Amino acid sequence: MTKTVTGGLAMDWLSEILQAQARYARCLDDGPLEAWPDFFTEDCFYKITTADNHRRGLEAGLIWADNRRMLQDRVSALRHANIYERQSYRHVLGLPLVAGPAEGEAESETPFVALRIVRDGATEVFASGRYLDHWRRDGEGVRLAQRIVVCDSSRIDTLLALPL
Amino acid sequence: MTKTVTGGLAMDWLSEILQAQARYARCLDDGPLEAWPDFFTEDCFYKITTADNHRRGLEAGLIWADNRRMLQDRVSALRHANIYERQSYRHVLGLPLVAGPAEGEAESETPFVALRIVRDGATEVFASGRYLDHWRRDGEGVRLAQRIVVCDSSRIDTLLALPL
Amino acid sequence: MTKTVTGGLAMDWLSEILQAQARYARCLDDGPLEAWPDFFTEDCFYKITTADNHRRGLEAGLIWADNRRMLQDRVSALRHANIYERQSYRHVLGLPLVAGPAEGEAESETPFVALRIVRDGATEVFASGRYLDHWRRDGEGVRLAQRIVVCDSSRIDTLLALPL
Repeated sequence: MTKTVTGGLAMDWLSEILQAQARYARCLDDGPLEAWPDFFTEDCFYKITTADNHRRGLEAGLIWADNRRMLQDRVSALRHANIYERQSYRHVLGLPLVAGPAEGEAESETPFVALRIVRDGATEVFASGRYLDHWRRDGEGVRLAQRIVVCDSSRIDTLLALPL
Repeated sequence: MTKTVTGGLAMDWLSEILQAQARYARCLDDGPLEAWPDFFTEDCFYKITTADNHRRGLEAGLIWADNRRMLQDRVSALRHANIYERQSYRHVLGLPLVAGPAEGEAESETPFVALRIVRDGATEVFASGRYLDHWRRDGEGVRLAQRIVVCDSSRIDTLLALPL
Repeated sequence: MTKTVTGGLAMDWLSEILQAQARYARCLDDGPLEAWPDFFTEDCFYKITTADNHRRGLEAGLIWADNRRMLQDRVSALRHANIYERQSYRHVLGLPLVAGPAEGEAESETPFVALRIVRDGATEVFASGRYLDHWRRDGEGVRLAQRIVVCDSSRIDTLLALPL
């Protein structure tokens, strides 16, 4: 991310990204999960990785997709496995840092913490990390052309492979 | 929540709600607690409930009030019981999603996590969830005409019944 | 903090402080740590203290500095001790409350939670609290003329003395 600005164009982007991130988090936590792929462009790139792997430039990820169709398949798989409903999650996003806004594109970096709430049980930190995002504006608003989710811990529950 | 927009009117609302939420969280955590009812309109509706009960449409809540006077009574009761001072809390709010801003009203949905800090002890997640808010603007700023606090966990400490 | 406003001047400050806080948090978590002193003015005041000590007006702090040079020394000491690299951190900041914006200055108060991620281990709350900030604008953006970090817990790990 090269440059951050605060006037005019960037103000629009800041508020638009604030709202898109809020809407995204709500979709993950309160559903419907089927709406999740709509936050992305058709030709999107999406990856969940760990800070260690990200630093070493490793391509593999816990989830890896290079188009929206793959994200839709992921949702179907989760619904089928009935995994998603056993507990609930709460994503609290920190303040997004917006960079390089140009004609119809911008980047942002946003820290997050995801809590897992087990029914009648304890609440714990499920994951923390940051979203490295590339946004593209179309007629309806902004969509993610790229999201790389970099998880801080390497001890992330790979069985679940939930969207983040 | 029907529609979110980012230009003009909505920008004002976004920054106003960002500030009102920040001020509200500060009041809960750093006091004075007596100022808490002032965030609400006189004829406000306030409820703390659980995600389970909210989903099932149950009316009852851990705290339930349909006017500001009841919130003032709640504060007096807490001061009398001397419960509030035994530990401290820290509310970290996520990004608010603002919707449907009209002439003098708007809605928002805001995730939160509340930490409980026990003196010289551990810090733990006390509650997480989301605020479903209805704001009304008057001469002095914006106030809550309605706040429904939906806690993620059903295992919330009902003895305390602190404001959230 | 005396007055909060939302139009014109204050809007600029709000978005500028949102971005500065986001950039600051990223610097702490993802480095380079050497860039951390640049968020401050040359004649800055920086202190980490506890809520208990802050309430009692005690001057001493876990870290105390009254100019930027001392912050640079702190970074050198941490690099030398090689302490900073053993685990990672994730700061999630709440919504900043901006107050008293005047010609080139503003104040803000921002809640934070800092998570500590131990390699292949658990993630826990390392610290929570609030930033009491005084910002000054210069040609390149805004810098901290003062930051007082008030930690909620008194049981903070004094051996580390990491920047917050």
